[in-house]
Amino acid sequence: MRTAAALVIGNELLSGKIQDQNVMVLARALRAIGVQFRRVVMVLDELDTIAAEVKDLSRTHDVVFTSGGVGPTHDDVTIDAVAKAFGVDTVYSNEIDDMLRAYYGERITPGHLAMAKVPRGSRLSRAKGEVWPAIIKENVWVLPGVPQIFAMKMSLVQEELKGDAGWISLAVHTTLDEGNLKDHLDRVVAAYPQVDIGSYPTWDNTGYRTKLTFDGLDASAVERARDAFLAYLAPEVIVALDK
Amino acid sequence: MRTAAALVIGNELLSGKIQDQNVMVLARALRAIGVQFRRVVMVLDELDTIAAEVKDLSRTHDVVFTSGGVGPTHDDVTIDAVAKAFGVDTVYSNEIDDMLRAYYGERITPGHLAMAKVPRGSRLSRAKGEVWPAIIKENVWVLPGVPQIFAMKMSLVQEELKGDAGWISLAVHTTLDEGNLKDHLDRVVAAYPQVDIGSYPTWDNTGYRTKLTFDGLDASAVERARDAFLAYLAPEVIVALDK
Repeated sequence: MRTAAALVIGNELLSGKIQDQNVMVLARALRAIGVQFRRVVMVLDELDTIAAEVKDLSRTHDVVFTSGGVGPTHDDVTIDAVAKAFGVDTVYSNEIDDMLRAYYGERITPGHLAMAKVPRGSRLSRAKGEVWPAIIKENVWVLPGVPQIFAMKMSLVQEELKGDAGWISLAVHTTLDEGNLKDHLDRVVAAYPQVDIGSYPTWDNTGYRTKLTFDGLDASAVERARDAFLAYLAPEVIVALDK
Repeated sequence: MRTAAALVIGNELLSGKIQDQNVMVLARALRAIGVQFRRVVMVLDELDTIAAEVKDLSRTHDVVFTSGGVGPTHDDVTIDAVAKAFGVDTVYSNEIDDMLRAYYGERITPGHLAMAKVPRGSRLSRAKGEVWPAIIKENVWVLPGVPQIFAMKMSLVQEELKGDAGWISLAVHTTLDEGNLKDHLDRVVAAYPQVDIGSYPTWDNTGYRTKLTFDGLDASAVERARDAFLAYLAPEVIVALDK
């Protein structure tokens, strides 16, 4: 199975000023195309830290996504860091330069043009109808951190990386707590090693105590695991079955 | 400055089923007590992955917080992983065992009692008035992933780790875009190396284009950096000043 990792960059996240929204968006996009999202690392705006992490993640995963640090100001060091991770310098992209000049017109400044810098050997890719490209250096996609723009890039990610099948997810909500269903659950987990089974207690007043999830690439096995778990439960403790 | 890292554990996060809420809560709690939160790693429910990460983070940071994987079911492997990271086995805590029996009474099952397992040599700590303790092994705090319970632990974290001073944060919202303020900003960044200055563009229709942030432990330096930046701006491009 193909694997993916994300490097989420920004002091504003680790200082608690903003809530990351990109990890969940990326997770859902990857899941739908059958890529296993294995790891997220969140770091400060530090060139060497980012470079070391990109180097490590790009060697250990099939595809890596960075989020953030691609603007023109001093705290935007991702482009330089990705270049450093691959041992190359940066070059100015005439294609991005042209786009920036078309967008800003006479108001353009050297600050704006700083955004045309890319790691040497990058390719630019865009979804049909999109103006701004994603910058891709080997297996590393350099994506902007602004959540609206990051989310817009997911159609391109899915288009380029789509595989044969997405994950299937089923869920059971029950009034039993985890301690009371553990024995049943352990048997189902042992019987269906190809199904990823999760158990999540809730402390909200939502009418159930535990949500069980059944996930996998093989829809039939996922259904059989869910049904095997259900077979142990008295009907009155089952609150809901979800896709 | 003391440093911290977090290890956020759970398949449900990397599959996009739920949005992490704990990183921001922890970030704010640490910031208020002057601890630098440097790194977050998010991984799947895999014992060896978690153990390797705990080992690494605990060596490279003053304090580490894990979130998730502490229930009684098969996908809860954090306690075993933390034990493995420190090369110890797990033991049953009589104190937690007593609490579980008091809480569940006659309904208690071996599944519930599985939650009394802790890494050997852990200590238990609780804030005044709290029933359930946090499990702390050396510099690693093992916290539950359920957001309501994770958030409740922050008062204990702050009580145990509080230092002399928290971070001071100031912000300026301006109608200028990053390309137009980069030159000014670079001068201020160079002049105030002890202040962490951030620049965040927005694509929402919020009445401003860029938010500048000024953060540090030295309140006077933070104010001077903010004022030095403001001195470059025409009054009409300043939308708001925030604490």
